[in-house]
Amino acid sequence: MAFSTIEWADGRIRMIDQTLLPTEFKQIYCDDIASVWEAIKSLRVRGAPAIGIAGALGAVLGIWDSTATTYDAFAGELKSATDYLATSRPTAVNLFWALDRMNRTAAENARLEIPALKARLLAEAQEIIEEDKAMCRAIGQHGMALLDENDTILTHCNAGGLATSDYGTALAVMFSAHEAGKNIRVFADETRPLLQGARLTTWELMQAGIDVTLICDNMAAQVMKEGKIQCVIVGADRIAANGDTANKIGTYNVAILAEAHGIPFYVAAPTSTLDFALKTGDEIPIEQRAAAEVTEGFGKVTAPEGVKVYSPAFDVTPAALVSAIITEKGVARPPYTESLGAFRG
Amino acid sequence: MAFSTIEWADGRIRMIDQTLLPTEFKQIYCDDIASVWEAIKSLRVRGAPAIGIAGALGAVLGIWDSTATTYDAFAGELKSATDYLATSRPTAVNLFWALDRMNRTAAENARLEIPALKARLLAEAQEIIEEDKAMCRAIGQHGMALLDENDTILTHCNAGGLATSDYGTALAVMFSAHEAGKNIRVFADETRPLLQGARLTTWELMQAGIDVTLICDNMAAQVMKEGKIQCVIVGADRIAANGDTANKIGTYNVAILAEAHGIPFYVAAPTSTLDFALKTGDEIPIEQRAAAEVTEGFGKVTAPEGVKVYSPAFDVTPAALVSAIITEKGVARPPYTESLGAFRG
Repeated sequence: MAFSTIEWADGRIRMIDQTLLPTEFKQIYCDDIASVWEAIKSLRVRGAPAIGIAGALGAVLGIWDSTATTYDAFAGELKSATDYLATSRPTAVNLFWALDRMNRTAAENARLEIPALKARLLAEAQEIIEEDKAMCRAIGQHGMALLDENDTILTHCNAGGLATSDYGTALAVMFSAHEAGKNIRVFADETRPLLQGARLTTWELMQAGIDVTLICDNMAAQVMKEGKIQCVIVGADRIAANGDTANKIGTYNVAILAEAHGIPFYVAAPTSTLDFALKTGDEIPIEQRAAAEVTEGFGKVTAPEGVKVYSPAFDVTPAALVSAIITEKGVARPPYTESLGAFRG
Repeated sequence: MAFSTIEWADGRIRMIDQTLLPTEFKQIYCDDIASVWEAIKSLRVRGAPAIGIAGALGAVLGIWDSTATTYDAFAGELKSATDYLATSRPTAVNLFWALDRMNRTAAENARLEIPALKARLLAEAQEIIEEDKAMCRAIGQHGMALLDENDTILTHCNAGGLATSDYGTALAVMFSAHEAGKNIRVFADETRPLLQGARLTTWELMQAGIDVTLICDNMAAQVMKEGKIQCVIVGADRIAANGDTANKIGTYNVAILAEAHGIPFYVAAPTSTLDFALKTGDEIPIEQRAAAEVTEGFGKVTAPEGVKVYSPAFDVTPAALVSAIITEKGVARPPYTESLGAFRG
């Protein structure tokens, strides 16, 4: 990508403030973990892999100025920082995965002196970023085999470069197909309430020169009925062992519509999104978002004052509606307990 | 209702400008048919029955200052006015129905002198309004029998008092049940792009003291999965002889979700919405709306400049997904060719 979604820059974190896109491209700096927490909570950085990276870099920031002189004191500070960052968003497993990895890295390197341990933790966060880049490319390669020439793909929310360090998950499939010379087109759900599809997915695809058409979420059924869509590809925030998939609210909606129209429904996600501790999606906690995102999200009040609002941030698509899960290790087909299980470890 | 959606007021039409709700309650006046055409096109007045009334009153306005001295000249002016008003919105059959009725009334009263004929046409438009009020009450009475105590109903768009002269169609069922002392709750889809659900349906229900919760359109599947919804009730803009139903974009989406969750899906509409000339919904023309409604509908640009947009204003729900059609003449069940046919004439 021409831009870096999130990176370490001289003792600070630099990220694109995605709440300002597509009308303003601005990179902001986080100097402390409170600002990282706020950036995750406010969706300045969003998308499961990018949140994981923000967590890892945030953990580094949390101990970067530590004056601890013993490992135990240092490890305690790191644990406090990661516990705090873990409260920013409850659903994305990549965040917990990245934070656990940082704590484990510290434990495995307890013999190092504090300055060397700080450097080791930064190197681990950078390693997560490099792995993420390789993961995006591999997902793209595996997924493009599922696309035929002249296919039109429907996607929901943003699972692109802005959701990762590099190239995306769902959008990686489209970027890879386009780069390989396949003629594809995309319909993008705008994705209420925060319009990540309208603001971010269209922006990324247009930058890449891919033909994209924006629709409101409630138009997807009609577009499918008109025969315009050959497959759906979405990202994921958390996938249970049986293939049940938590992703942006509205994904389950699209999955039902795809099934009703006989259209394949694909999930593209790194294996870090797999949570084998969860047998099914019923165990995935669903974050509730603030009412104001629905009632005044566009800078204008669009509902009566005091109206009750129900706003789950995610939904869980049952594995039965998922045609395949595209990971960096290959494409998993049902039954997922077996096919995803093979990616374990 | 405490307010009049649209009415004749001393040689002009007075209507609530629904584009300003819910933050501003303002009544505007139309002095000529160009302003009526604009009010329909811009959705200042919307909802199939209310559009029909706007058409009928607009036709009166079109000949109110006529200086014609012969019936033929007068009838020509009326025909020009109705032809022009018919171009404002292509999908709502009530508009064409009301305009035809005005022309037919003129023809049936060709013997009257011009001033008396003008008065006769105004009386006919007023009669349409009175029939509409009686229709709303009858739909409410027939429909409430379908609701059980403690039911929660999902509705889409606005088929309430603001969409009619009085009490609504889909919302009439809820108003009637509430007035009869039934305990009901409502979830309202916000209904992108123009948010009639968020702006109008919640406002009407809150005014009536009915418990209403606002959701984004893409949350309906999740809300159904959580067991929160016992039935769906929506309005209709045009119903074919076989029961295929054109209504606000996203209705077909909700119908598929209801079927997938085993939830009854009801359409509430006056028999003036029935178009027996259409065997199926495939013959219903679907209006495309302007891209800006999707990309900058709320005073803020929310998509990249120049992005392609696909924005059908309506969709057609196949009769197979419709559990019943609630009209002022009774509740029709499948097969609709027979049950709706019985309402004909």
